[in-house]
Amino acid sequence: MTRQDLINQIKEKQSFLCIGLDTDIRKIPEHLLKEDDPIFAFNKAIIDATASYCVSYKPNLAFYEAAGIKGMISFEKTIQYLNDNYPMHFIIADAKRGDIGNTSAMYARTFFEEYALDAITVAPYMGEDSVTPFLGYDGKWVILLALTSNKGSHDFQLTEDNTGQRLFEKVILKSQQWGNQENMMYVVGATQGEMFKDIRNVAPNHFLLVPGVGAQGGSLQEVCKYGMTKDCGLLVNSSRGIIYASKGNDFAEAAAKNAKALQAEMAAELNKINI
Amino acid sequence: MTRQDLINQIKEKQSFLCIGLDTDIRKIPEHLLKEDDPIFAFNKAIIDATASYCVSYKPNLAFYEAAGIKGMISFEKTIQYLNDNYPMHFIIADAKRGDIGNTSAMYARTFFEEYALDAITVAPYMGEDSVTPFLGYDGKWVILLALTSNKGSHDFQLTEDNTGQRLFEKVILKSQQWGNQENMMYVVGATQGEMFKDIRNVAPNHFLLVPGVGAQGGSLQEVCKYGMTKDCGLLVNSSRGIIYASKGNDFAEAAAKNAKALQAEMAAELNKINI
Repeated sequence: MTRQDLINQIKEKQSFLCIGLDTDIRKIPEHLLKEDDPIFAFNKAIIDATASYCVSYKPNLAFYEAAGIKGMISFEKTIQYLNDNYPMHFIIADAKRGDIGNTSAMYARTFFEEYALDAITVAPYMGEDSVTPFLGYDGKWVILLALTSNKGSHDFQLTEDNTGQRLFEKVILKSQQWGNQENMMYVVGATQGEMFKDIRNVAPNHFLLVPGVGAQGGSLQEVCKYGMTKDCGLLVNSSRGIIYASKGNDFAEAAAKNAKALQAEMAAELNKINI
Repeated sequence: MTRQDLINQIKEKQSFLCIGLDTDIRKIPEHLLKEDDPIFAFNKAIIDATASYCVSYKPNLAFYEAAGIKGMISFEKTIQYLNDNYPMHFIIADAKRGDIGNTSAMYARTFFEEYALDAITVAPYMGEDSVTPFLGYDGKWVILLALTSNKGSHDFQLTEDNTGQRLFEKVILKSQQWGNQENMMYVVGATQGEMFKDIRNVAPNHFLLVPGVGAQGGSLQEVCKYGMTKDCGLLVNSSRGIIYASKGNDFAEAAAKNAKALQAEMAAELNKINI
């Protein structure tokens, strides 16, 4: 999907919501456990109920790998279902991969060719040759970890070098020599608040993938205040706050209700920038 | 596996060789392609031929994930085969995972409970809560990326902070607040040469997992000169140089020959420290 296609979807739906499909067998409604593939049954219901309120879905691979082969079958079926039924949604594999060039190239083949996903999250620690193999695919995206939503983000990402540049800034600036606004985004946690100002100093126009609204405590309004661009420039993710809105038979309706509420808040933010 | 068990294995076999099972369907001998599961058939033959020369195997997940569900079945069968037949080998999932605490905990369950592996490689960028969920398992290990073997290692890992400490040093020192010599190792590329001296300044006794001998150009002698401790303290990995030693019917014998040659070099190095 191109950058312009994504912006068009955001305008049309008045939403920049990404829903995290972090589906945990221990957290889904009990009545689904009698299905052949409970994880897929859950995802399908969540997707059908929420698709009109979001522009993106983001399954985190850990949740599927945890169930071994069965989990990976649920993952493949989910991606296939999205590709078949919601081809204009932007599908992100939250995989946080990154290895030597030879190996990153294998991962790129898996996620972009085998699964036909739109984007993958990549960890920057190993540098250029761990990232660039993901950049050779038309309409596919790398979403590089920059300033993450968790407490541990402070351990290394904020380290200042001898010129005062922090590691997350170095990652953002250096990676702009490898990719551009049409094939690269950055992960910035919603919990980082005013730090979005600093992010926009080094990445004024790039899209940011923003996890951490909801269960992790980030504020949508603060993210928009400091992080929104004239093209929106944000994909804000909510996982647990939407998909586990209810553990009852009404889980899909409850998810839809929470997604709709977040979409309405997003429409109000988009209204401020007239898109 | 405990640290002492690993040291005992190294002494007994006079080897600190780890063989990387980076099995690529496009690189294995053609006659194996008619097998039901060519990847597993290849791995099984390589393992049987080389097990007496090495103390560890390290499948890189990327190579299995690239083949989708089928690849993950090959991975599971390989791990099962190793656990059943070579229980004293130290099995490392080269996965380079790392995510927010909640998600890292899922990965830990997958690799340590679902697959019963001994160790997993972890990327440090997201900090403490992305690493510690892997540390709660008896006899299981985190192998944290510190100074990798690839060219891109220079992009961020060598960045000096305002006190002159480089990022890889910070990673090693900081992570010693989370784990210890009994449950944590570090990845240091064989291509880093004299840098092993600097590594030993901050991690004098930790085991190091050292990829990059062979195809990537690192020297075993240099690694040992600067990196070996009184307990050996090294697991040196070779992947392509061993498993793809021949593309013919003699691929397993050729792999054994190369593994044996490397083991002999290692025995000479161990002799220098009298273990």
